[in-house]
Amino acid sequence: MGFKITNRALIVELSPVEEISRIAKQVKVINFASGNPDFQLIPVSEVVEFVRSVATKWGAKSLMYPGMGGIEDLKIEIREFAERIGVNIGNDDIVVTCGAQHAFKILSDVLVDHNVTIFCENPTFYETLIPLRINAKRVIGIPLDSSGIVTYELEKLLKIYKSEYNILYLIPTCHNPTGVTMSIERRKHVLELASKYDLTILEDDPYRPITTNTPPPLKSLDREGRVIYIGSLSKVFAPGLRIGWITASKDLAYRIALFEQLDFATSTFTQYIALEALRSGFIYNYMLKLADHYRGKMKAMLKVLSDFMPCNVEWTKPCGGFFLMLTAQGFDAELSLAEAIRNGVIYVPTRKFYVSDERRETLRLSITQPTVEEMIKGVEILSHIIKRSRA
Amino acid sequence: MGFKITNRALIVELSPVEEISRIAKQVKVINFASGNPDFQLIPVSEVVEFVRSVATKWGAKSLMYPGMGGIEDLKIEIREFAERIGVNIGNDDIVVTCGAQHAFKILSDVLVDHNVTIFCENPTFYETLIPLRINAKRVIGIPLDSSGIVTYELEKLLKIYKSEYNILYLIPTCHNPTGVTMSIERRKHVLELASKYDLTILEDDPYRPITTNTPPPLKSLDREGRVIYIGSLSKVFAPGLRIGWITASKDLAYRIALFEQLDFATSTFTQYIALEALRSGFIYNYMLKLADHYRGKMKAMLKVLSDFMPCNVEWTKPCGGFFLMLTAQGFDAELSLAEAIRNGVIYVPTRKFYVSDERRETLRLSITQPTVEEMIKGVEILSHIIKRSRA
Repeated sequence: MGFKITNRALIVELSPVEEISRIAKQVKVINFASGNPDFQLIPVSEVVEFVRSVATKWGAKSLMYPGMGGIEDLKIEIREFAERIGVNIGNDDIVVTCGAQHAFKILSDVLVDHNVTIFCENPTFYETLIPLRINAKRVIGIPLDSSGIVTYELEKLLKIYKSEYNILYLIPTCHNPTGVTMSIERRKHVLELASKYDLTILEDDPYRPITTNTPPPLKSLDREGRVIYIGSLSKVFAPGLRIGWITASKDLAYRIALFEQLDFATSTFTQYIALEALRSGFIYNYMLKLADHYRGKMKAMLKVLSDFMPCNVEWTKPCGGFFLMLTAQGFDAELSLAEAIRNGVIYVPTRKFYVSDERRETLRLSITQPTVEEMIKGVEILSHIIKRSRA
Repeated sequence: MGFKITNRALIVELSPVEEISRIAKQVKVINFASGNPDFQLIPVSEVVEFVRSVATKWGAKSLMYPGMGGIEDLKIEIREFAERIGVNIGNDDIVVTCGAQHAFKILSDVLVDHNVTIFCENPTFYETLIPLRINAKRVIGIPLDSSGIVTYELEKLLKIYKSEYNILYLIPTCHNPTGVTMSIERRKHVLELASKYDLTILEDDPYRPITTNTPPPLKSLDREGRVIYIGSLSKVFAPGLRIGWITASKDLAYRIALFEQLDFATSTFTQYIALEALRSGFIYNYMLKLADHYRGKMKAMLKVLSDFMPCNVEWTKPCGGFFLMLTAQGFDAELSLAEAIRNGVIYVPTRKFYVSDERRETLRLSITQPTVEEMIKGVEILSHIIKRSRA
């Protein structure tokens, strides 16, 4: 028999990230596509140790049904962790989620309906935007430059839509896919605009734990309780454990936790593993190492690009995070992907990351998997393909 | 600032199960309320061993982002497991979820909108119904007796609503909260009605792995592809790992997996733990032990009830599962709960499990936590409270 699929499900497509990651698993190529942390730096044996501690300390309790909103002890540790990375939670409460993506699905269900307009950077991360988009009236993308979202463009559009209930979704630090980090001036301006136009801000901030010297999160600059902060342990510990968190005012956090009951997806066991990793101090040491490591890799990648890329190719210059975005005029990143794979390199075309004004000539490069040697080889291959496609 | 909460979030209340479980954690009482498996039978040290195997065999891969729809190797093992417990999956595909509850949230988003009427047993499990209910046009409860849902009552209502798209949500085996298992005749009749009235059936079947001699699942009797089967490892392994699964036709399974991308909640790590537990054969041995254990406990509880309960108190007589439902005319299970706790026993009042015709005189008793001695003591206390409340 045929099943009737809801409209909200019919509009969901295969994520371009998932699509490319499936290909990447099947071919042996230099992987500029991965959103995963560096395979070499996943603390596998430490996780085994944490599991032993969890079993000893909490026994069967660690394998029972989770309570609503997350384990209290973990919430205390996350609060401490947040403070250590510069996130001022104040009187807000924490809700533990199965990673940031799960947080956005729940936040969308709790805050977004057909009256809500979502503003976001253009391009933005395809996967987190989708759950917001399926419930929203419309999504409006705002261009970003090397200092982050262009706030005067944002204001132009806010003036048009000011009578509506608007939500601003932002990845201000190590933006995905561009790698851009928003300047302190822009951050302050965003908050001024939020106040003036009564905006709610969703701050998606997974890279903060593995970066240093970044401007404070919007959350810490927020004096009006407008910012809902979404954090994650995926980059700083292990994405496969699916541990993320939302901070929100007590009332709203309670609503979010109530709604989270509907899927009851948060694993008690992985929460206890995260609790051990935080409480033991492991993550605090590890994150310094990771910040060094990824900063070094990003620096190497930027050097390689400037050594090998032909003229008229531009790329962002991130100071941290996993990604940068490359723009090659006259190049079609989707059309040329098959050739790139045949030649030994894979990347993520970013056309679908655009909310509007799609740009086929853009692609996302990840620095997490390739070694410096692979970066050189991979960028050489890519630069040949770009040149050939223009010839 | 105040946030605008969507209507779908505003209607979500604290689950009565969560509410009672919070109280149960704070008081030292005989626990007839728990939905958890028996604490004594959670395989903690085995899980630690599985984690060591996972780390050795898959290393960092087990801690990376999950792929869409679940790990392929786990899906193969779940197919085998399903066949071993009598679920004929045929050509259907499997989607791995974070437990059955997560499955119902996604199924609701994919299949239920404001045109859909949900039929279900009355009472039914509060928590799984909520995600279906928030998207549906209406929910209609059908009474059940000791053979399961009363199919001629179901047909009466289907005649009224036959022009609509209807979904039938059922817990045919060891129903929650009543413990009733639907007879084979009723199962066949349900499928006849499904065919005649073009119904989609959601079969929620978490207790099958820990029961024996139960009638085949609706899924195995279904010749028209009407049944979407939802299984879980929560009762047979560990609920805190959050591993559940949906079987559906290839097209529908793909839609479900696409939608699951929106929350991306499924932990890679716990999926690998489940894979090891299944592949090693552990679960196949364990489930026989569990079936024996819970059958013995249920039998003991039924004996204790018939020994100590006053007249005019009735209860269901489940052959397996975790729960039975007790009906005490003239008793208000919610009103008397505080007194019960003061006297050393906790249970779940089931008024809120009713879709309509709420019955305050009903309550759910779980057999998982109390020993036989505690059962005797707890039932004595409960019977005194019932008697007193009637005096």
